Amino acid sequence: MDKSTKIKVGIIGASGFTGQELMGLLFRHPSVDLKFISSQTHVEKRLGEIFPQFSNSDMSFINLEQALELKDKVDLVFFTTPNNIAVKEAKKFLDQGISVIDFSADFRLKKNSDYKKYYGFEHQDLALLESASYGLVEYKRQEIQKLKKPFLIANPGCYTTAANLALIPVCKYGAEYLDLNSIIIDAKSGVSGAGKTLAASLTYNEVVENFKAYNIAGKHRHSPEINMILSEAADADIKVSFNPHLIPMFRGLYATSYIKTSRDFNFDKFYEYYLDFYKDEKYVKVLEARCLPETKWSYKNNMTFIGMDYDADTQTLIICSCLDNLVKGAAGQAVQNLETVFNLRN
Amino acid sequence: MDKSTKIKVGIIGASGFTGQELMGLLFRHPSVDLKFISSQTHVEKRLGEIFPQFSNSDMSFINLEQALELKDKVDLVFFTTPNNIAVKEAKKFLDQGISVIDFSADFRLKKNSDYKKYYGFEHQDLALLESASYGLVEYKRQEIQKLKKPFLIANPGCYTTAANLALIPVCKYGAEYLDLNSIIIDAKSGVSGAGKTLAASLTYNEVVENFKAYNIAGKHRHSPEINMILSEAADADIKVSFNPHLIPMFRGLYATSYIKTSRDFNFDKFYEYYLDFYKDEKYVKVLEARCLPETKWSYKNNMTFIGMDYDADTQTLIICSCLDNLVKGAAGQAVQNLETVFNLRN
Amino acid sequence: MDKSTKIKVGIIGASGFTGQELMGLLFRHPSVDLKFISSQTHVEKRLGEIFPQFSNSDMSFINLEQALELKDKVDLVFFTTPNNIAVKEAKKFLDQGISVIDFSADFRLKKNSDYKKYYGFEHQDLALLESASYGLVEYKRQEIQKLKKPFLIANPGCYTTAANLALIPVCKYGAEYLDLNSIIIDAKSGVSGAGKTLAASLTYNEVVENFKAYNIAGKHRHSPEINMILSEAADADIKVSFNPHLIPMFRGLYATSYIKTSRDFNFDKFYEYYLDFYKDEKYVKVLEARCLPETKWSYKNNMTFIGMDYDADTQTLIICSCLDNLVKGAAGQAVQNLETVFNLRN
Amino acid sequence: MDKSTKIKVGIIGASGFTGQELMGLLFRHPSVDLKFISSQTHVEKRLGEIFPQFSNSDMSFINLEQALELKDKVDLVFFTTPNNIAVKEAKKFLDQGISVIDFSADFRLKKNSDYKKYYGFEHQDLALLESASYGLVEYKRQEIQKLKKPFLIANPGCYTTAANLALIPVCKYGAEYLDLNSIIIDAKSGVSGAGKTLAASLTYNEVVENFKAYNIAGKHRHSPEINMILSEAADADIKVSFNPHLIPMFRGLYATSYIKTSRDFNFDKFYEYYLDFYKDEKYVKVLEARCLPETKWSYKNNMTFIGMDYDADTQTLIICSCLDNLVKGAAGQAVQNLETVFNLRN
Repeated sequence: MDKSTKIKVGIIGASGFTGQELMGLLFRHPSVDLKFISSQTHVEKRLGEIFPQFSNSDMSFINLEQALELKDKVDLVFFTTPNNIAVKEAKKFLDQGISVIDFSADFRLKKNSDYKKYYGFEHQDLALLESASYGLVEYKRQEIQKLKKPFLIANPGCYTTAANLALIPVCKYGAEYLDLNSIIIDAKSGVSGAGKTLAASLTYNEVVENFKAYNIAGKHRHSPEINMILSEAADADIKVSFNPHLIPMFRGLYATSYIKTSRDFNFDKFYEYYLDFYKDEKYVKVLEARCLPETKWSYKNNMTFIGMDYDADTQTLIICSCLDNLVKGAAGQAVQNLETVFNLRN
Repeated sequence: MDKSTKIKVGIIGASGFTGQELMGLLFRHPSVDLKFISSQTHVEKRLGEIFPQFSNSDMSFINLEQALELKDKVDLVFFTTPNNIAVKEAKKFLDQGISVIDFSADFRLKKNSDYKKYYGFEHQDLALLESASYGLVEYKRQEIQKLKKPFLIANPGCYTTAANLALIPVCKYGAEYLDLNSIIIDAKSGVSGAGKTLAASLTYNEVVENFKAYNIAGKHRHSPEINMILSEAADADIKVSFNPHLIPMFRGLYATSYIKTSRDFNFDKFYEYYLDFYKDEKYVKVLEARCLPETKWSYKNNMTFIGMDYDADTQTLIICSCLDNLVKGAAGQAVQNLETVFNLRN
Repeated sequence: MDKSTKIKVGIIGASGFTGQELMGLLFRHPSVDLKFISSQTHVEKRLGEIFPQFSNSDMSFINLEQALELKDKVDLVFFTTPNNIAVKEAKKFLDQGISVIDFSADFRLKKNSDYKKYYGFEHQDLALLESASYGLVEYKRQEIQKLKKPFLIANPGCYTTAANLALIPVCKYGAEYLDLNSIIIDAKSGVSGAGKTLAASLTYNEVVENFKAYNIAGKHRHSPEINMILSEAADADIKVSFNPHLIPMFRGLYATSYIKTSRDFNFDKFYEYYLDFYKDEKYVKVLEARCLPETKWSYKNNMTFIGMDYDADTQTLIICSCLDNLVKGAAGQAVQNLETVFNLRN
Repeated sequence: MDKSTKIKVGIIGASGFTGQELMGLLFRHPSVDLKFISSQTHVEKRLGEIFPQFSNSDMSFINLEQALELKDKVDLVFFTTPNNIAVKEAKKFLDQGISVIDFSADFRLKKNSDYKKYYGFEHQDLALLESASYGLVEYKRQEIQKLKKPFLIANPGCYTTAANLALIPVCKYGAEYLDLNSIIIDAKSGVSGAGKTLAASLTYNEVVENFKAYNIAGKHRHSPEINMILSEAADADIKVSFNPHLIPMFRGLYATSYIKTSRDFNFDKFYEYYLDFYKDEKYVKVLEARCLPETKWSYKNNMTFIGMDYDADTQTLIICSCLDNLVKGAAGQAVQNLETVFNLRN
């Protein structure tokens, strides 16, 4: 692709795990030109100095103000900042006609009360929140394809993506055969999901050869996001029991979802429906019936692998979905959103 | 303890992971004297040659025939052999007045049909099977304490131990508040659970940075064992949905159990009941309400840690239990059985 | 790049670790079109069935005979086969005018006696061996750039690449200040270096939390390859003491090289010389003096990072070099060779 | 052993990795009675609350002042505190007639200038320093056995122990056949060696799948300690080139030592001498000639495994030694010192 026709982008907050992953994807994307990287922590430092894997790049970090001055140089910025930052800064770019894809939770939820309850802050811009599109391409493709520039896309959470891609067809299939009030999601993630925070619980000693649950029983922040989307898909009020665990590995996320069925549930029929549901999706691979996925398959790629089985003795449908939390669960899904709006491919 | 009063034991099949673990425990046990170790693979080899961590020992492996000749030297033998071996060989020791604690599944299940369905063999000695005691000390202490020598104890499975210690109080608490037909167990284990088999799926490459489900939907061999004990505890026919996963670590096992409750279920009352249930158990530690355990806590010790929380929105009781699959899930539990019969401590 | 002008390639033996890595690199290479993949083990299987990470590809494996029939479709084939295969099969492609880049040791060494001593076979085609070019681009760029098609390139070994990139400037700097007879290389590699062989020593249990030396004291196959190149660089007979170790990780290779110096050795001058030596190399990054590299920096990229320090008390120059054994140590270096011959970039 | 005749001990600073390891060893030691554990951080907390693996203990942490008040209750205290603490506090116990075994560097070195250069502090009690014994039992057994109570033992460093046990026989063998000025030690350690410090470099992300050198070229604090002991053993001024690396694992330490030999060095004779040197040592296992050790063998035990090979082509003697840095490199060696002074066993 001719350089002049490439989509010109910048990154705000490029020093976390998802920011690094995004840089890697953008550097080698044939249709994207990365114009700037911004990081308050590393301003004026050369990229290769902070992240040696990018030693061949001649980029340096700029700060947010400098990024805003480059408004004529870019079509879109990615925010890979912590929560409650994009809510304040994204508008400055949107007002300049620059589109935004935000990795944080700032524009994912529709209810301000959920921000208070789960994130501990009052949302400061409900109008902007209202205008944001939820960037789960497989579920919202038509809406995303029709977006006018400048657009604001909320990139979904990592657990949410794995859980919802598994369960949207379940919710669509309907309440006749499936007890949508019985959904239990036992989720497991590698530690990169916790970001680069310096915490005793994230030292090698605490993580290696260790496995544990955390924030179970609806306490995790992705709970309301999962419920929001599944309720929409089911056209009913869905409340799942979402229960995350920590795996001693760096990247990879696995969700095992349990749904009780009626006695006359037919697994083969359901499987056919499910297979058909995703048949045109490039980044969702439904395995053969009763085959199960492994996180390694999704390592550093944008795939979601889904496998399922049925326990007739206990009338339990079990769906296993997995993805790379830093790719399909973050940077790769953001690029997929860009590709979808700009009609690039997929 | 005077050497002459120690309990004299031998090990049949001492070259697997559980056999190694057992040797380590017995070498430092103040009341046990390990008289022989047997292994068909390593006959006549010095122990330190095969397992350098035991370089200071002057023991050598003998074969089964030589072990039988030492019948006057030992009070008890541990079988740490694969399935379908003790069923044929244990009787030879019992007939000589030597007690047996078996690590395999050979004497755990009561129904021959379960052996055919889950283990692929017909049980060859149903009378012996009938005579065996199930060695979950916390549940069967009185029976185990009363055993007459020579006795035969079936040491429980690793997943089974974690699941059943978590769920026996649930089943006892009863069906008024808890839906015992709704139990789902999402279990996760380190790879030592698969033993020392040489399989592509157990190479470093396949295990590291990987997480996957396997044998879900009731296919795992520990399913009938869990159902057997929980049905007994509930005095009702219990069928759980048991679903194991593989964690990229060597030892450690975690079971997250989900039970739907009635609307008037009172978590605090249940928790008090639960706490009381295990208050005298040395090897079961019930954490404070809503605190969750980590496998690392049980690393190389005989503890089972249990934590629980309640998701009121979805009326789901969640119980997390964890243990070291090679200790409380195998060798440590076997020693606990020995200590219980011989009234040593605990 | 227009599809018609891309370089058309095939892979023989695409099912090992280096073959997988190479497929990943070629699928996203803007100037290369991968036309076929061959594997005796997986003939007629879909690529995504064997390697789920490539689920979106519609390629299937063919066998060697089918590959030869596609001779008009490709410009070059990569051999990612075990040792002693390309020596027999590469000529069939070369005779058809198809160039070959071979990953094995079959065309690396110049002395037949070294094949007998280190690889256990007599080389069957010394004329072909004589015609092969050694593909260490940083050292042989001019020769590689001048190659006429069809050419045969021997892709260097992984340890060899790390050691020689570190030590070629040492050998060039010369014997006045550096004792070239004193070179000791203490090398360490992740287990992917051992390939996908199913061996007890490569199970998770044996690798995790374990570190060990192996094939030290000149026994490793890369010893003669290192000596061959360094002798050429020094224009003298160089014999290093090469000593490899196994690290509990999947990919990454580290070489710590020790060279005794004369009393009047000036580290700063040497460092300047060294920095200058690699100043135009895209894939070699010499760190600031006394800074040391980490394998993670080279994870899944083609870089070699080199850092050095000087121990004046013991007159020891210490050079640390690291790379990803599957990329710069194999597939990435092969692509670098292709890019160099076809004058693509770098 | 009757409780009244047990050796009564306390621990000062019991909350680090070596303190935890020591507690584990002491709880199960048949001849030792642990009377108190002290930690400024955790005063009045129950041990099981801080370290759940010790849930069955009813001990609580006390502070240093409370520990001093228990002077009549203990024979000996272990200091597992950071550097520059025991130098101030140990005397308070010694003055009460209580012996001290210190894990820090405070009493290891004999030259105050080394404390300034390597540890950044002036030693505050040179008389006490002078009175301390260096607790490498295999080298100083006779001195340690003769110690009068109260005694002060400096427990050796972890790298130092691995390096010196490997090299003391080399230095004793002498300079005729071995070039003692050529010694290079390439050492590698798991991350527990760095202690429980909360540092970005010790997060799971930075450690896993990573390998790197650090503090090479004589900068590491164990350099002067190694030189001190080897000089004594050789009765000559020995300066080694000591170069540590970090392995992505928790515990385990490996030292590969290189010594250039004269032309008439006879490896077989040297090996016989070496084997004989350690023939009565319980915690040093010299492997068969040309066999090499693995860190896993020493996992959680007090052994040092030593293997060696000779590279005749480069006249290089290579000795590999490994141990568990938290056991033989810290807590296990401290217990070995206690056993040696109190003439318990070994």
